[in-house]
Amino acid sequence: KRKIALEAARVDKGGHKHFMAKEIAEQPVAIDRALRAYLGSEDGRQLPEDLDFTTVDRLTMVACGTGYYACLVAKYWFEQIAKMPVEVDVASEFRYREPPVSPNTMGLFVSQSGETADTLAALRYMEGKAAQIVGLVNVQESSIARESDVVLPLHAGPEISVASTKAFTCQLVILLMMALKAAQQRGHPLPDGLPEDLRALPGLIHQCLSLDAQIKDAARDLAKAQDIIFLGRGVLYPLALEGALKLKELSYIHAEGYASGELKHGPIALIDEKVPVVVMAPRDALFEKTVSNMQEVMARGGKVILVTDAEGARVAGDGTHEIITMPQVPDALAPILYAVPAQQIAYYTAIAKGTDVDQPRNLAKSVTVE
Amino acid sequence: KRKIALEAARVDKGGHKHFMAKEIAEQPVAIDRALRAYLGSEDGRQLPEDLDFTTVDRLTMVACGTGYYACLVAKYWFEQIAKMPVEVDVASEFRYREPPVSPNTMGLFVSQSGETADTLAALRYMEGKAAQIVGLVNVQESSIARESDVVLPLHAGPEISVASTKAFTCQLVILLMMALKAAQQRGHPLPDGLPEDLRALPGLIHQCLSLDAQIKDAARDLAKAQDIIFLGRGVLYPLALEGALKLKELSYIHAEGYASGELKHGPIALIDEKVPVVVMAPRDALFEKTVSNMQEVMARGGKVILVTDAEGARVAGDGTHEIITMPQVPDALAPILYAVPAQQIAYYTAIAKGTDVDQPRNLAKSVTVE
Repeated sequence: KRKIALEAARVDKGGHKHFMAKEIAEQPVAIDRALRAYLGSEDGRQLPEDLDFTTVDRLTMVACGTGYYACLVAKYWFEQIAKMPVEVDVASEFRYREPPVSPNTMGLFVSQSGETADTLAALRYMEGKAAQIVGLVNVQESSIARESDVVLPLHAGPEISVASTKAFTCQLVILLMMALKAAQQRGHPLPDGLPEDLRALPGLIHQCLSLDAQIKDAARDLAKAQDIIFLGRGVLYPLALEGALKLKELSYIHAEGYASGELKHGPIALIDEKVPVVVMAPRDALFEKTVSNMQEVMARGGKVILVTDAEGARVAGDGTHEIITMPQVPDALAPILYAVPAQQIAYYTAIAKGTDVDQPRNLAKSVTVE
Repeated sequence: KRKIALEAARVDKGGHKHFMAKEIAEQPVAIDRALRAYLGSEDGRQLPEDLDFTTVDRLTMVACGTGYYACLVAKYWFEQIAKMPVEVDVASEFRYREPPVSPNTMGLFVSQSGETADTLAALRYMEGKAAQIVGLVNVQESSIARESDVVLPLHAGPEISVASTKAFTCQLVILLMMALKAAQQRGHPLPDGLPEDLRALPGLIHQCLSLDAQIKDAARDLAKAQDIIFLGRGVLYPLALEGALKLKELSYIHAEGYASGELKHGPIALIDEKVPVVVMAPRDALFEKTVSNMQEVMARGGKVILVTDAEGARVAGDGTHEIITMPQVPDALAPILYAVPAQQIAYYTAIAKGTDVDQPRNLAKSVTVE
């Protein structure tokens, strides 16, 4: 039955040119589904009761590729909101480095397919060492789901395009809900407006989708570059990594993400008029710092594409090559929202270059070997 | 007095064409000095007594750029040898993400100059929260030295070239000695041959220096590339990051380091005959895994420069574009030794490109602003 459902999805792009376009556009619906499944409402559904943050004192998150970047974002949330220390590692490193695991650790494994070989091996390493094994997967009948103590399905719906989009944003949404639950259970106040503001996410994501015309323009320029740098700070730093990965996968342009503050420790040597720099920076507490890094880029002739909100555009827009103006959003939600332009930049740059968007060269959707 | 000493160093390249060449060549002597200062010997010198790993249960290491990669290597050592969990972060992220700090944490801050602004701010964040603050610096009269509970000078001697070389390898040597001390204090057996094998390091490094003719050849090829990927696994993964950073800084070629196991999760899309791949892989327990990743690269037309030992060359040399054969070395010492070809690749590629080796564009030796 599942196979038939997948086959049907495979032939149906729902009027879109590519599965990736369809899956980007589906995000308001997918996120709404994830919220309904876990946020709790009149019908009483919420995060599983056996997901217990009172019996553990730290979290170890393991994943590969895009899932790893979702975990990096979650590290900021869990540490800032729930005051829980978090360790994140890529699965291929974690499984072989023989990390000491304290018994009060929750192991969290993130994989769209639930079959990623290295992530599954990392899960098995943690079995019997950690207090609880939690799996965050899109495919509910997968190995990682079967071998976890607690499984949280993403509810993203089948993802066909090799580059992950709606699975990534659903991972983020669920990880944030988990951090909020951890904060509640551990007696820490929730950030203002949360969790209520989460309900605005589908609408906000929908708003972002309409930026595509502007991003299409920017992408025509980006498609001419051979090298691109993405910058972000704090909770937006992993989004810089994700934006670069996506662009690399789809357009074969060598994009690399950096923490803005690391720019001066080496990578700024690369910057000249031929290396565009995409800066992900809502007007938050770290904005001024990122703007100062951005100005160093511009002083060296670098073309900046600034992804920010209206207030950020007003304050720091001078001298940038292009500004993509996002909706205003509470700090904690920014990485979820900024995932959309990251996806669209990769998508439209690939279109401008004429590469195979849904099936990039050399890549497989699910990496089931080492 | 210190200023005069530095001025003298500044004008004296000791017969070398660049300070960087001089500082690479000085590594056997610098490392010997660090070993004599800390390893303990007939004259009784050793690591400071107040460096106590029995009163802490975890380590948080913070640095920027190359120092950050030294910390990433040290994480493997501390976890595998001393069974101590380690968290590593770049200073610009650490200082703003409000990480929870458990009182049984040792904070370790690594900075050549001892004045890196973000690292100093991170140290101040940890003050009063961590059990002990340890500074690993080359400049003993620096702010980080002054504000640490325990200071370990690198004994690398003045480093003039902007790209760090001997400070990096001295950082590694001292971090390994610290991991050994932690293992002893916490009752874990030391790896076979350690610490005795450390005494062989200056000689081994000296042997590596003589590979420069071969690396010069490889660099002429690399200098034609616009993009280069570095791969490594386990304790060599941070060396892939360091090799890429160095090359980026000196030659302005966009080099990027990856954990070998992450290649399939995205970056392999970049690989074609125009993107050389430098693989750092001694014949250790992870060698077969890395070879399989390397073969995927070659299957896609990628040119591989394999840095390995004689046994690795024999087993996996077929089909590689170039092999740089390193001396055989105990697993734990490999990252220290493999730093040398990483430096030489960057140095000779920069020479082939004609860039300013000692003073790359846009970079400062000590980053004292954010």
